[in-house]
Amino acid sequence: MKKLRIIKIGGGIIDDELSLHQFLQLFARIDGLKILVHGGGKGASEMLRSLGIAPQLVNGRRITDAATLDVVTMFYAGKTNKAIVAGLQQNRVNALGLSGADGNVIRAVKRPVREVDYGFVGDLRPASVDGALLGALLGLGLTPVICAITHDGHGQLLNTNADTIAATVAVALSSQFTVELHYCFEKNGVLLDVNDDDSVIARINLTSYVELKEAGIITEGMIPKLDNSFDALSQGVNKVIIGHALKINEPLKTVLCLN
Amino acid sequence: MKKLRIIKIGGGIIDDELSLHQFLQLFARIDGLKILVHGGGKGASEMLRSLGIAPQLVNGRRITDAATLDVVTMFYAGKTNKAIVAGLQQNRVNALGLSGADGNVIRAVKRPVREVDYGFVGDLRPASVDGALLGALLGLGLTPVICAITHDGHGQLLNTNADTIAATVAVALSSQFTVELHYCFEKNGVLLDVNDDDSVIARINLTSYVELKEAGIITEGMIPKLDNSFDALSQGVNKVIIGHALKINEPLKTVLCLN
Repeated sequence: MKKLRIIKIGGGIIDDELSLHQFLQLFARIDGLKILVHGGGKGASEMLRSLGIAPQLVNGRRITDAATLDVVTMFYAGKTNKAIVAGLQQNRVNALGLSGADGNVIRAVKRPVREVDYGFVGDLRPASVDGALLGALLGLGLTPVICAITHDGHGQLLNTNADTIAATVAVALSSQFTVELHYCFEKNGVLLDVNDDDSVIARINLTSYVELKEAGIITEGMIPKLDNSFDALSQGVNKVIIGHALKINEPLKTVLCLN
Repeated sequence: MKKLRIIKIGGGIIDDELSLHQFLQLFARIDGLKILVHGGGKGASEMLRSLGIAPQLVNGRRITDAATLDVVTMFYAGKTNKAIVAGLQQNRVNALGLSGADGNVIRAVKRPVREVDYGFVGDLRPASVDGALLGALLGLGLTPVICAITHDGHGQLLNTNADTIAATVAVALSSQFTVELHYCFEKNGVLLDVNDDDSVIARINLTSYVELKEAGIITEGMIPKLDNSFDALSQGVNKVIIGHALKINEPLKTVLCLN
């Protein structure tokens, strides 16, 4: 099977124009088939403030009411996605921007209201992603650039976690490709000492993951990302890599594997 | 050759949620291959005002400075495009939203500064459109939904007239398909009497077009649209139709042809 890299970048890189520019140059140099998944960044929150819409957060998660959905859709699918696509075109990558509604590539389900009503937020299932269409677009020489907006198939757009999108897309494509999933952020990898950016743990398997959590070395912020990663590995993704977005071609990073 | 309909809708339909909803249902019922091209609408101007960015117009045309480009990109490629795509998906049309940067489908040239500096506005040439890629996307069962944002290939997004996009895409695809280009607006067609919406001129050819202009029947607002149309016809487009967006399946409309 052909190798496919799925690379997820987050707000830290997107918020800084120079960093994003550098990242896109590095991304362009990666050979072979690739997909970029991007999150939001602070810009959407700033625009919400400019428009007088107060961001609502519960447990650090944004509540997406209708006005907020409008703004995040404009920001993620409009501003950020098109800036990335135009920047990749400049670097000779034939990028194609996608929300989950485009080509129906990611059909989500609005999160059920339990203790908290998260509003217009989409949850994903393995069958949410149309891997056949993504494979066909890759076959046309295109590089999909996926933003964190999906839809429910009934006309409703939904704000969706970009880490989850990356993992679900990776799983959906693992029957067609040997998939490597990269989570990029502002650190060099999973760190033994959060204050020492050189203390990267080179390799974590399921057993050591449990130990590192029990020892309090892997803490809150990283746990959802690593849970997503091990789920993806158990569902056919070949390798998950966690590292710095601007060192994507360097060896310093954490590799996750099941055993 | 297979038949392809390229349908352009403007602000009047987009600004009114119910009209847009009705139009998308009618569009979904059109058999065969189709592409939708959409303009902006008043929403972008309202958002510019909310953000304290005063719209600048010269001769009725918006000057696109960097701040304005940001907002129109968010609005056209984010809000409007994704609302249309999600609405078409709801109606079982596998829509794929595109700016000109996506897949490099429309590469424009920034308008040269002469008497007026229009800012980040893109002009098109016949070679601007990648007809092969659009043909391949149609071949995958997708319905492209193109917004009025293009790029220059060097990382710059450009605001571009949607009528011109529709005509240029129509010409680019006329070697692969028998192309019918529909300009939809809020009137039933080209009118003999602008105050009588039933006075539709059923057919206009190049000769009668010149006569209608000289007689003052076809006036300013319509001339660029009809000039675009006759240019498109002279470059291989089979038929141009001008009519009401909400009567797209009805016979009341103006058909343009060369002879």
